[in-house]
Amino acid sequence: MANFNNKKSVWMSTKRIETLVDGVFAIALTLLVLNIDVPNIVGSVTDPVLWQYIVNLSQQLWIYAFSFLLLSSFWRANHQQFFFIKEADSNLIWITVLWLMFIALVPFSTNFVSNYGSHSIPMFFFNLNMLIIGVFYILIWTYVSKKNYFYETVDKKQLKLINRINYILPIVALVAIGVTFVKPSWSPYSYFLIFILKMNIKRI
Amino acid sequence: MANFNNKKSVWMSTKRIETLVDGVFAIALTLLVLNIDVPNIVGSVTDPVLWQYIVNLSQQLWIYAFSFLLLSSFWRANHQQFFFIKEADSNLIWITVLWLMFIALVPFSTNFVSNYGSHSIPMFFFNLNMLIIGVFYILIWTYVSKKNYFYETVDKKQLKLINRINYILPIVALVAIGVTFVKPSWSPYSYFLIFILKMNIKRI
Amino acid sequence: MANFNNKKSVWMSTKRIETLVDGVFAIALTLLVLNIDVPNIVGSVTDPVLWQYIVNLSQQLWIYAFSFLLLSSFWRANHQQFFFIKEADSNLIWITVLWLMFIALVPFSTNFVSNYGSHSIPMFFFNLNMLIIGVFYILIWTYVSKKNYFYETVDKKQLKLINRINYILPIVALVAIGVTFVKPSWSPYSYFLIFILKMNIKRI
Amino acid sequence: MANFNNKKSVWMSTKRIETLVDGVFAIALTLLVLNIDVPNIVGSVTDPVLWQYIVNLSQQLWIYAFSFLLLSSFWRANHQQFFFIKEADSNLIWITVLWLMFIALVPFSTNFVSNYGSHSIPMFFFNLNMLIIGVFYILIWTYVSKKNYFYETVDKKQLKLINRINYILPIVALVAIGVTFVKPSWSPYSYFLIFILKMNIKRI
Repeated sequence: MANFNNKKSVWMSTKRIETLVDGVFAIALTLLVLNIDVPNIVGSVTDPVLWQYIVNLSQQLWIYAFSFLLLSSFWRANHQQFFFIKEADSNLIWITVLWLMFIALVPFSTNFVSNYGSHSIPMFFFNLNMLIIGVFYILIWTYVSKKNYFYETVDKKQLKLINRINYILPIVALVAIGVTFVKPSWSPYSYFLIFILKMNIKRI
Repeated sequence: MANFNNKKSVWMSTKRIETLVDGVFAIALTLLVLNIDVPNIVGSVTDPVLWQYIVNLSQQLWIYAFSFLLLSSFWRANHQQFFFIKEADSNLIWITVLWLMFIALVPFSTNFVSNYGSHSIPMFFFNLNMLIIGVFYILIWTYVSKKNYFYETVDKKQLKLINRINYILPIVALVAIGVTFVKPSWSPYSYFLIFILKMNIKRI
Repeated sequence: MANFNNKKSVWMSTKRIETLVDGVFAIALTLLVLNIDVPNIVGSVTDPVLWQYIVNLSQQLWIYAFSFLLLSSFWRANHQQFFFIKEADSNLIWITVLWLMFIALVPFSTNFVSNYGSHSIPMFFFNLNMLIIGVFYILIWTYVSKKNYFYETVDKKQLKLINRINYILPIVALVAIGVTFVKPSWSPYSYFLIFILKMNIKRI
Repeated sequence: MANFNNKKSVWMSTKRIETLVDGVFAIALTLLVLNIDVPNIVGSVTDPVLWQYIVNLSQQLWIYAFSFLLLSSFWRANHQQFFFIKEADSNLIWITVLWLMFIALVPFSTNFVSNYGSHSIPMFFFNLNMLIIGVFYILIWTYVSKKNYFYETVDKKQLKLINRINYILPIVALVAIGVTFVKPSWSPYSYFLIFILKMNIKRI
């Protein structure tokens, strides 16, 4: 049931765009597990053979955890933004859809990097994907701020905090792109900066 | 929790049909990424080989973006229609379900065209799919208008605008079918007319 | 946000079970399209070759439409039931989850039948799946009626109508099982009885 | 539409985390069916051949039912917890996301065990997965209790009941890990203890 706001200029509640966003994330997160392979062991299955497999498996589990947490943090950031947004219009919907297009690309980017991570081109592709996602957070927030689509009761200090948080991802992605040209395989570790920066931003 | 309207003639709120629609779109959009292949490079992986792959990849990314935006615009159009619809009955649910059947077919149609796009039959199939989807928008709107299932506070001018928007897709699909008989590979570009026509319709 | 009913005996709103049900249906419906194969034509792709493929494709599209409408009608029936249900308890949740287990099995059953439909065993398996689904509708309705979890304002005549509708699927499934022993390939056509019976029930 | 609570310390409604959780479960549950194989019978398809297949199929259906019910019980437990939770903060969101990471791993664990269930390492992996999931229920509940994010009208007796229920899964998982070292193939049956313990807890 659409939440009808009786204003000519506003056609949209944010409810359905949030449902679409949550759906895309739920699917992307759940599909990540399909990248973990169950072994097809030919010959006798002994415990040492399985143990060897578990060692290989641990790398795949690491990539799974990395992608899962990265995607979750993107969902969380969207979650935080839309918590303060009361109304939406056609432009906001389309900016969010374009952002979703790059979110839905993440499982591919991760897969690409996990297969050819020691090379600079896939790593550059992955980092570019992150940079674009990050820029979209700034775009969404700038647009909503300009149109003042926030709840009236919102605390201005919190809006400023979100604004600062929005710049974390693009900056970290640029750092990661820089690292790519030095040593591609080190590049993913740049993203741990997100968690460090976020904690410090809240303290300020 | 069903939103019970205490009227004998109306069995339905629009909430659950919207949830189903959003779910189907979220899945269809997220599954599009599975069509992009991670390369299985045999032999040594050099940067030039990867670069060659990136060039091939760019075509797949283009189809991904095209399908993503087309499906999103279909979701958006449904979104706009149901924003004004207050009540639903059994017939409206079934018309929407039939529409969804052709929406869920889009990933297949896109895949079919992307593999054999220079031939007229797959392109005709794709355009026919679009035409049927477009006709369903008109059917839904005609039915809801006849039954007057709109919110009472709705602005009549906006309903007329939606009505005009509904005719864009079928007309563009007919144009695309026409182009198929001239040069099939040009046919998909017809769909850019949607964005041009939509902008002009709002200006009128 | 859970809808908290301040009653000791009732732990549940129906909201989240409906979200789960809608999610499972949205995914099952969207995954059906994955059963349609894009041709892997080796050698030159001529229009006659594609046309031959389209003829083969038409059978797959028929199965797609059949499964899509059957699953949709199951979703619709659940939708109708829960429209009248105000409260839920632990037992109702579990009965619905068990029903969902057989719903999520439908893509497999359909696939099984579409590959070996001329044999009685897969067809029997499919019909048994339908029978169990049908019995669960009766179970859910009987339980909710016994506990009187309906909205207070519900019209008793409508509840009786739903009750009669619940018996359609099990009866049709039993007919289909009977037909399986005569001629398995005729068995799926039994399900068109659902639409005929439903129309007549509303007229009574 | 975000449910804005006008309090500085609380940034979150629980609505969107519940939507994400329901989405992940709906997908995980529906994807389980993809593990059931439709036979690729080469040569003539006779009823005895199909019957033999059905016998093999029964084992796969058993694993399907086992995973479906186990995952459903995890969804149900989350459902019960969040029914009493009114507010959420950043930490609660992240604990729930981490829990989801191990939930989304269940289809892999089940698949791993179903292929190599007679060996202790996959079974240990599966049971460890269960143990971690179980510990997260306790973490979520402990955190929410400490912060007192419950609805004001909640009955304290029910909170204590949930608290006791939370300890069932970790204890059962520890039992299952113990059984793994004795006879791995018996280990899954430990999980039937969940249903027995749950019934008795309610009686106390």
